[in-house]
Amino acid sequence: MNGAQALIRTLVASGVDTCFMNPGTSEMHFVAALDDVPEMHGVLALYEGVATGAADGYSRIAGRPAAALLHLGPGLGNGLANLHNARRGNVPVVNIVGDHATYHAQYDAPLQSDIAAIASSLEGWVRESTDASSVASDAAEAVAAASGNPGKVATLILPADTCWSEAGGPVGAAARSAPAAVSQQSVAEAAEALRSSGRAALLVGGTACTQDALALAGDICAGTDSSLLAETFPARLERGAGRVEPQRLGYLAEFAQAQLDGLEHLVLVEARSPVSFFAYPDKASDLVPDGCTVHVLSVPGEDSTAALDALAAELGVDRGVAPRQVAQRPDRPTGALDAQSMAAAVGALLPEGAIVADEGNTSGLFVAGATAGAPPHDWLCLPGGAIGFGMPVATGAAVAGRDRKVLNLESDGSAMYTFQALWTQVREGLDVTTVILNNSSYAVLEMELNRVGASADGKLAREMLDLSGPDLDFVSLARGMGVEQATRATDAGEFTEQLEAALASEGPAVVEAVVPPLL
Amino acid sequence: MNGAQALIRTLVASGVDTCFMNPGTSEMHFVAALDDVPEMHGVLALYEGVATGAADGYSRIAGRPAAALLHLGPGLGNGLANLHNARRGNVPVVNIVGDHATYHAQYDAPLQSDIAAIASSLEGWVRESTDASSVASDAAEAVAAASGNPGKVATLILPADTCWSEAGGPVGAAARSAPAAVSQQSVAEAAEALRSSGRAALLVGGTACTQDALALAGDICAGTDSSLLAETFPARLERGAGRVEPQRLGYLAEFAQAQLDGLEHLVLVEARSPVSFFAYPDKASDLVPDGCTVHVLSVPGEDSTAALDALAAELGVDRGVAPRQVAQRPDRPTGALDAQSMAAAVGALLPEGAIVADEGNTSGLFVAGATAGAPPHDWLCLPGGAIGFGMPVATGAAVAGRDRKVLNLESDGSAMYTFQALWTQVREGLDVTTVILNNSSYAVLEMELNRVGASADGKLAREMLDLSGPDLDFVSLARGMGVEQATRATDAGEFTEQLEAALASEGPAVVEAVVPPLL
Repeated sequence: MNGAQALIRTLVASGVDTCFMNPGTSEMHFVAALDDVPEMHGVLALYEGVATGAADGYSRIAGRPAAALLHLGPGLGNGLANLHNARRGNVPVVNIVGDHATYHAQYDAPLQSDIAAIASSLEGWVRESTDASSVASDAAEAVAAASGNPGKVATLILPADTCWSEAGGPVGAAARSAPAAVSQQSVAEAAEALRSSGRAALLVGGTACTQDALALAGDICAGTDSSLLAETFPARLERGAGRVEPQRLGYLAEFAQAQLDGLEHLVLVEARSPVSFFAYPDKASDLVPDGCTVHVLSVPGEDSTAALDALAAELGVDRGVAPRQVAQRPDRPTGALDAQSMAAAVGALLPEGAIVADEGNTSGLFVAGATAGAPPHDWLCLPGGAIGFGMPVATGAAVAGRDRKVLNLESDGSAMYTFQALWTQVREGLDVTTVILNNSSYAVLEMELNRVGASADGKLAREMLDLSGPDLDFVSLARGMGVEQATRATDAGEFTEQLEAALASEGPAVVEAVVPPLL
Repeated sequence: MNGAQALIRTLVASGVDTCFMNPGTSEMHFVAALDDVPEMHGVLALYEGVATGAADGYSRIAGRPAAALLHLGPGLGNGLANLHNARRGNVPVVNIVGDHATYHAQYDAPLQSDIAAIASSLEGWVRESTDASSVASDAAEAVAAASGNPGKVATLILPADTCWSEAGGPVGAAARSAPAAVSQQSVAEAAEALRSSGRAALLVGGTACTQDALALAGDICAGTDSSLLAETFPARLERGAGRVEPQRLGYLAEFAQAQLDGLEHLVLVEARSPVSFFAYPDKASDLVPDGCTVHVLSVPGEDSTAALDALAAELGVDRGVAPRQVAQRPDRPTGALDAQSMAAAVGALLPEGAIVADEGNTSGLFVAGATAGAPPHDWLCLPGGAIGFGMPVATGAAVAGRDRKVLNLESDGSAMYTFQALWTQVREGLDVTTVILNNSSYAVLEMELNRVGASADGKLAREMLDLSGPDLDFVSLARGMGVEQATRATDAGEFTEQLEAALASEGPAVVEAVVPPLL
């Protein structure tokens, strides 16, 4: 058994049975070993950013990590943005990067580069296997590290000779620790803050965005007359009719400040203290209002659900009283197609159990509201802010959730980063409906150009944010990737019919929604 | 004048007047400043890998650096593969990466990451500006560093507040040093090696692939009965009828070994000692034959042309005697379309002064031979081995060479890494003809799977190298990007006609050549 075979058997034994890959020469033994270990599902991507984003999406839905297989430093570079997003969402990913054979490094061949330096930016776990006999144990430790508390990106660098040389055999899964318990003092401090008069809020994030945790948080807020807020872009938020829905903080600092305004106590439950995504001249970066004290109930890696249960007990609040989202859907829209009517159509049609990968940006602003009362579903956001996550995450989520419908809301500009994901969706027969919100602009940047106080009058500056000239034709692009069901809608009735048909079909479908810029 | 304005004015004053960009919020002041400094040409890319590869291609043709503008760590990641290629080719690139405002970093906002760690893998010049008043001088130094000897990737990290705050003003170009002279001892040693009996060769690379240098190298080889070899993938090789053509070392180690077989002396002229691209079990990494002594006439950053002139003088060889490539073209092909007939069509039609960006891989194997006697042209290769360089490099080369025809030979798999380049070509009205060699496979990996000694019989392994299922339709993909002239050829006559029409038209055109895998 060579190192590659030992590697894959170890990954499978450790619960990692899906690998999204864009391999090269240095990974050929991994590829060859797929036939020896059919329990491993290899999924080919045409680009590394698709592979890493799909691994992220898979892990969010499966609750256990997928692997990504990349080709040396440049492959890691190509996959880095979506690994950044996984890192910021504490999503476990086992990131395997092939490298030159150990003895080949001295020759500084063309693809030689400092892989570890690039991987260090992911602030997770990085190891380079030194020989074939250590590959299996390194792989088991990588899975354990990725699946740690909190989840992280574990990068295992594998020189080619560690894969082709004789190895001892696979090893079993490495021990994993349970999430840490929060201290009684944290619980007591949070309870004291919520009990005190004045205005308080819980701000939840991470694993506290599951319904088990949100139900407890909702009970706590109901019992203490506090607000239930969530981080802006949770990796996975369970929501919909009959569920407890937190109010997500706005992306725009001004909106978030309005939501936080007047608070005296803010209790963080696996969330970061609110800060602005970007700095703006003469605007605050720290969004916590003056006079508001921030308390930490739990941090990523701690057991937030148990902490909320303890807090509810400490406060003695009634259980099961949190207000639940009422089942309701918007009417099917007619008339002009814009961000609002598009959102209404999604709200009218979203299937039960759907997984929504949301990269709708400005055009998607109204969708969360329009779907709040739709049947229960999962909402996947962009925790790291690196554009190009939506299509790959939808792809991986569909691999993990084979019996569920995936809806990907995708802006035109964002779609162009990792559009190759559609090909993998077709190849794997994945049940993903992609809605491309085509406003022919980087609309979010048009807004930001004004917000940063930069002159927005210039013709040349405007051109840098304009995606017309030429217009992107997403129907042609989708067909080029092999998506047979690809249509374009220019009014709300047409969009609703096309979305309904796409959701009713099995397999990948694309609906291009031609919408005016929101702002 | 704010930092962004001072930055752009300084870049222009330093000779950098083209910036390929994919900006985000932290770069909005740079974008806004474009209207203040119309001498700077901002070229929008839909993806960072397009921007960085275009900067590489521009610099190779213009002989001075372009800038790339990227958005924080994830943007740098997306652009890293083509920066790696530029680094390995010693191509100067001024790589500007926007970052959070200096005071915002402490808040660890979602897009925060260690940009300098990622940039360190480029082994060039890295600096982060600390305030607006230092941006201009930092920019001037970045240009000087990029334009140094050898050329390199200079990464300037610009916190947003250094761009929006008041700056002193632009500065003039920083001093640049001339290439270093080689030592008389290097010249004497090389002369001694070439004079001695036995078989010797010059191996040229880098700036020694210009015709001035090649003519000298050819005279030296003619006068000493030596061979004239070139590195496998020069960044830019001047070739064609009437010129001196070196024999490029083969990509496959076996081929390169055959070319080097029997040599007793190998003189390196700005080239690395030959090594295998990848390691293979039981095959040598170092390709220099036993008994062959390697001598270094010049290294990157030294003046290779002057060194060759000194060497020719030392040897006393006749000048102007190097054999020149005879003008000849293949006949226009008919019959089946395959790697050979495709190459013949290119050889029959390549226009004088063309720039060829060659990412044809296995399908392109015969093109160099078929075009050797075509009118003078430039050939751009892949010095760093990171796939996805061809379309961006063609894009940037076309911006730099506005009066020249660019031909991009592009494999199907490679095309899918940075296909978004077509959109920029349409937007800028660039005269690029892209030939997509569609063999529906990662053919180079099919070959490598066998060469690394991995089992190649497995169905699952084969699937990872197979790009059919679904078939990529490059005509649809090109039309989706706005390329109006996009056609597909399935026999040699059809391909020749379509290529001729594409080359005759102005502006971007795509010809998809459906070819069988070579092997």
